[in-house]
Amino acid sequence: MDFSSFLTSLVTSFLIFVVLMLLFAWLSRKEGNSVVYYPNRILKGLDPPASGTRNPFAWIQEALSSTEQDVISMSGFDTAVYFVFLSTVFGILVLSGVVLLALLLPVAATDNSVKVTAATTSNGTFNEFDKLSIGNVKEKSPRLWAFMIATYWVSFVTYYLLWKAYTHVSKLRADALMSPQLKPEQYAVIVRDIPPVPEGLTRKEQVDSYFKAIYPDTFYRSMVVTDNKVVNKIWEELEGYKKKLARAEVIYAQSKTTGKPGGVRPTNKTGFLGLFGKKVDSIEYYNGKINELIPKLESEQKVTLREKQQAAALVFFTSRVTAASAAQSLHAQIVNDWTVVDAPEPRQILWANLPIKFFQRQVRQYVVYAIVALTIVFYMIPIALISAFTTLEQLKKLLPFLKPVLNIDAIKTVLEAYLPQIALIIFLALLPKLLLFLSKAEGIPSLSHAVRASSGKYFYFTVLNVFIGVTVGGTLFNTFKTIQKNPPDYIITLLANSLPGNATFFLTFVALKFFVGYGLELTRIVPLIIYHVKRKYLCKTEAELKAAWFPGELGYATRAPGDLLIVTIVLCYSVIAPLILPFGAAYFGLGWLILRNQALKVYVPAYESYGRMWPHLFVRILAALILYQVTMLGYFGVKKFYYAPFVIPLIILSFIFGFVCSKKFYRFFHDTALEVVCRELKEVPNMELVFRSFIPQSLGSEKFDDDQFEDALSQVSRTTSLV
Amino acid sequence: MDFSSFLTSLVTSFLIFVVLMLLFAWLSRKEGNSVVYYPNRILKGLDPPASGTRNPFAWIQEALSSTEQDVISMSGFDTAVYFVFLSTVFGILVLSGVVLLALLLPVAATDNSVKVTAATTSNGTFNEFDKLSIGNVKEKSPRLWAFMIATYWVSFVTYYLLWKAYTHVSKLRADALMSPQLKPEQYAVIVRDIPPVPEGLTRKEQVDSYFKAIYPDTFYRSMVVTDNKVVNKIWEELEGYKKKLARAEVIYAQSKTTGKPGGVRPTNKTGFLGLFGKKVDSIEYYNGKINELIPKLESEQKVTLREKQQAAALVFFTSRVTAASAAQSLHAQIVNDWTVVDAPEPRQILWANLPIKFFQRQVRQYVVYAIVALTIVFYMIPIALISAFTTLEQLKKLLPFLKPVLNIDAIKTVLEAYLPQIALIIFLALLPKLLLFLSKAEGIPSLSHAVRASSGKYFYFTVLNVFIGVTVGGTLFNTFKTIQKNPPDYIITLLANSLPGNATFFLTFVALKFFVGYGLELTRIVPLIIYHVKRKYLCKTEAELKAAWFPGELGYATRAPGDLLIVTIVLCYSVIAPLILPFGAAYFGLGWLILRNQALKVYVPAYESYGRMWPHLFVRILAALILYQVTMLGYFGVKKFYYAPFVIPLIILSFIFGFVCSKKFYRFFHDTALEVVCRELKEVPNMELVFRSFIPQSLGSEKFDDDQFEDALSQVSRTTSLV
Repeated sequence: MDFSSFLTSLVTSFLIFVVLMLLFAWLSRKEGNSVVYYPNRILKGLDPPASGTRNPFAWIQEALSSTEQDVISMSGFDTAVYFVFLSTVFGILVLSGVVLLALLLPVAATDNSVKVTAATTSNGTFNEFDKLSIGNVKEKSPRLWAFMIATYWVSFVTYYLLWKAYTHVSKLRADALMSPQLKPEQYAVIVRDIPPVPEGLTRKEQVDSYFKAIYPDTFYRSMVVTDNKVVNKIWEELEGYKKKLARAEVIYAQSKTTGKPGGVRPTNKTGFLGLFGKKVDSIEYYNGKINELIPKLESEQKVTLREKQQAAALVFFTSRVTAASAAQSLHAQIVNDWTVVDAPEPRQILWANLPIKFFQRQVRQYVVYAIVALTIVFYMIPIALISAFTTLEQLKKLLPFLKPVLNIDAIKTVLEAYLPQIALIIFLALLPKLLLFLSKAEGIPSLSHAVRASSGKYFYFTVLNVFIGVTVGGTLFNTFKTIQKNPPDYIITLLANSLPGNATFFLTFVALKFFVGYGLELTRIVPLIIYHVKRKYLCKTEAELKAAWFPGELGYATRAPGDLLIVTIVLCYSVIAPLILPFGAAYFGLGWLILRNQALKVYVPAYESYGRMWPHLFVRILAALILYQVTMLGYFGVKKFYYAPFVIPLIILSFIFGFVCSKKFYRFFHDTALEVVCRELKEVPNMELVFRSFIPQSLGSEKFDDDQFEDALSQVSRTTSLV
Repeated sequence: MDFSSFLTSLVTSFLIFVVLMLLFAWLSRKEGNSVVYYPNRILKGLDPPASGTRNPFAWIQEALSSTEQDVISMSGFDTAVYFVFLSTVFGILVLSGVVLLALLLPVAATDNSVKVTAATTSNGTFNEFDKLSIGNVKEKSPRLWAFMIATYWVSFVTYYLLWKAYTHVSKLRADALMSPQLKPEQYAVIVRDIPPVPEGLTRKEQVDSYFKAIYPDTFYRSMVVTDNKVVNKIWEELEGYKKKLARAEVIYAQSKTTGKPGGVRPTNKTGFLGLFGKKVDSIEYYNGKINELIPKLESEQKVTLREKQQAAALVFFTSRVTAASAAQSLHAQIVNDWTVVDAPEPRQILWANLPIKFFQRQVRQYVVYAIVALTIVFYMIPIALISAFTTLEQLKKLLPFLKPVLNIDAIKTVLEAYLPQIALIIFLALLPKLLLFLSKAEGIPSLSHAVRASSGKYFYFTVLNVFIGVTVGGTLFNTFKTIQKNPPDYIITLLANSLPGNATFFLTFVALKFFVGYGLELTRIVPLIIYHVKRKYLCKTEAELKAAWFPGELGYATRAPGDLLIVTIVLCYSVIAPLILPFGAAYFGLGWLILRNQALKVYVPAYESYGRMWPHLFVRILAALILYQVTMLGYFGVKKFYYAPFVIPLIILSFIFGFVCSKKFYRFFHDTALEVVCRELKEVPNMELVFRSFIPQSLGSEKFDDDQFEDALSQVSRTTSLV
């Protein structure tokens, strides 16, 4: 890619961005769109900003002037931590950029040695850009000292800002955990791997007597986990019919006002997808179904509570300190019995995972790791498999009704040409979902933990395949024999050799990602269209309408791997081609601004983990830094700079820095510090409410009170007040 | 070493053993020796067995009929765990031996291929022994299948018995921890890394308010750790003078009865070692010194308590559960502040280590590891240094009074010849002490933990230098260039190649170790002589006499590395030369018998760690097993056996076995399980006694009660009864 085509692509991206911004300014002012652009405010009971009179770029001012406290109150601690991540990286890139551009560009630009040695530099992709990069500096030149100093500068800036960020996030987490607001999960622990029930006791008695003996004063009550598969299915069916009934009633009511005064009673067919079968009166039919299902649900609830108890339970304490300390303590002499961990929020418990046994979890974990490792290394194989199964012949067999379409020549040609690419795109689109599924299959008890785990897996996939893959890419296979001789040294040299040639590619990549990516993010064109289509043609009831504009979550866990890829790319190129730094800074600056707007006004978090994502982000930024330092070591080697080994102390320093940080901060992100939860709440918590908040929806009914107490839920041990 | 010289050495060892046994039977029957042969019984207030009428071999019967409970009550849980180790290894070797001797000896003896191929076998040390070993089997022979089966048999026997032993030891530990007897350390935790004292508070107030906030109901009191260096010195000086006074008074009293009726008042000189200076009346002089030191000690105690407070404390709780759970919980948001660990017994606390800060401990640990690694690899260097400093010239300079002796020609020659060897012997004798010193320098808070750490270091030293060193030894350096080509494979082959040649060496080594070593252990000749010499010429007072026969501890931590070396040797040779198995079994059988006698009657444990040594023993037995399996893989390779890779699943299985065991059992050996300590004690513990038992001797006085309370020791928060 030469300079002019780079400029073209940059300008195009920027124009798209400007168009999208104008579009947003126009669309967000329309009254009817406020549920798309301000759903978080609406759901929190706040008014969307008055439209019409409003300055179209007021959102920028609002985002800039919003405080961290605003983010926390509108979108939770996890989002606030994500902004700490964005601003930290932004800070690193700005501080590095100011010094590196001022220091390195003149040093590089005034050394014209390369025209002479151009033939020897890598890949022959020499262009205008390289004049401003390390590629323009002679081998063994003393000017390389400037690049060495720059390497140190970037590293120390990173250490300093990461340290500040870790301290800050740790304080944020402490504030969140010690807040006097009632958090039910702070009074509960998850107990897994309960041994078989002894003769003559029920499961509930077993759990109760075990914890009463250990915590005689603070034990409140226990809830045995049940196998809810059947009851969930019935409940979902019931809820589905309730929604359909509501819809039918609305349609009936509308028909009264628009059509005949008596109205038209809506009808539906009872068969598959409502397309086949007998035609019936919808309201009567759904009412009948609901009346049929309610007693079925109730009896199934009883059966579930009585007979489908599993070897796991939730245990409630009347004190936050006891719950926090129980989650960290060994309870049973045999370590894999009675394992106790802290409870997540009720909404994010993965109930089906709770009864999975200790060693099964271990095995599952290693199996999942192996699958993911294989996916990363051989990710082309599943794609090849998918495309093999989605050949035209297969498609015809599986979906015979497509046959006439597939026989048209033009369509046939196009499909045959693009099926593999389509398979690749589908694979990459499905990958996060696949990884989340795999992470859940590990037996992790909470959704936020599973999301973190899948985010980590996605990070490795991206960095290894996109960054290392693109960079080293083709050259790797050609030189495979050379590698075998001395693998680790060679890989570093190879990486260092391949980097400069790809600088413009990654510059364009970063620019495209922030201009077009964030532009689309802000305008929310796809959700807007979907909402309007649904509103016009599908939604009848209020609930359906709300579901149509419900914004979902910010999804920082899937965003983070993408951001971290940019961090890795920009850090690795920072000294080699410092021009990438402003682009990186712009990516994170713009990202901060636009996501701030989205966090404050659009997205609704699905769970709260009080910043547990941070250590993962930290470690990966540090890993990017170390990769960068190793690359620089290799690159100075390629430049035959005698003092290249001076980078080695920096690499060691990075490891020490990571070690110190993880020793100093990490455990607090895994366990709850007791000093944090020992503050008393404003008022004595209502333990009954705490307990009820953990009852799964499908089991929860007002009838839950008395007769099931002797089953999966245990009796109140005492009505002690909070200690 | 040929067969006859092996037999000679074996018979000699056996004869020495028989002589020592007879000597023991004779000596132990003498009344005056009972303090040497039964000190543990005497100290526990039990009578030594009636001498004279007693069957001289009754001790064997007594050892065999003693139960585990006897060992626990006489010598503690740690000793009982050591016997589990001995009997487990004994079981492994017996069960392996029975099958392997019956299976492999016939298979090997009937294959006479080797006389043909003798020239090709290793080292040319072919002898009668090899007829009964794998050396006698042809390359690629299908008879090697028998050896493969034997390899599997030994491994599965080891798995089975180790599993049983781990379960048993875990139960033992649980019994120990849940015993209703009062153990002060179960009510205390050590708090380290206390942050700087806030303005306006004392250290004690800081600690008290911190823990009162977290444990309002169960916090009892705290004790701030002080810098006791000065006060300890004064206290020791005082105790020394008290002993000397007692001695002088006894001498004076004796002189009254034996000499003149008025008696001779003993005198001493006040200068260096009592050899120089003014002659004074001992009783008056010592009395004067004591009267001078007592107020000095008291004022220093006050100063210490008030001004030498450190950033560490002991905190006492009124509940065992709270203490156990506090030791496992994170207390502070900043992980390296307020670190809490469980308290060891008062007698084994290393007070000076408690105030060492978190990261300093980390640094110390890595520095010590580096020193130990260097010592293991280059252990000849310190010896060379020692011998360089102990040349005759140096000796003359340092100890000028030895000059006339050193100038005698004969002595000169001998010393010059033996000084390096003496240096080596001194080094090996001092090594355990050096390692213990290094382990203490890591900042470990308890003696038993430091002993475990040094025991581990000694194990690595022994196995690497003695076993691998002797086996591979000379050949390694000659073939250094070959190794560089393909290190890991080559080392295995080298080991496998070198093993058979050394079989008889190690057979003799094991036999010597158990016949002579355990013979000397049982007869206790050295302590016996020392005791009698001291009693006759030195001891005057009762206290001095008791110190002369006080037996010390069993020292399983220094024994274990030696035993584990034998385990490693015997396992590695088990299939190659099965004849070693009876010797190994005899070592552990005889060891069990003789040490049982010593544990019941002689040694007094210095501390109790409730079996925490076990996981270390377990891991090292397993490591020996894996080394053995790897060696067999190499050896089958040397024998060109096509199915050699069949050993690989076994190696993987060993790792899985280790992983499962450590997951299932290990944490209970690190932390206290709450279910174990939740049983109530027989009576409410006297917290005042618990607290007092932790006061260091040099600070403890009856005056301690009231006026110092506002200093390092905190006030009683409440006199709550035990929950």
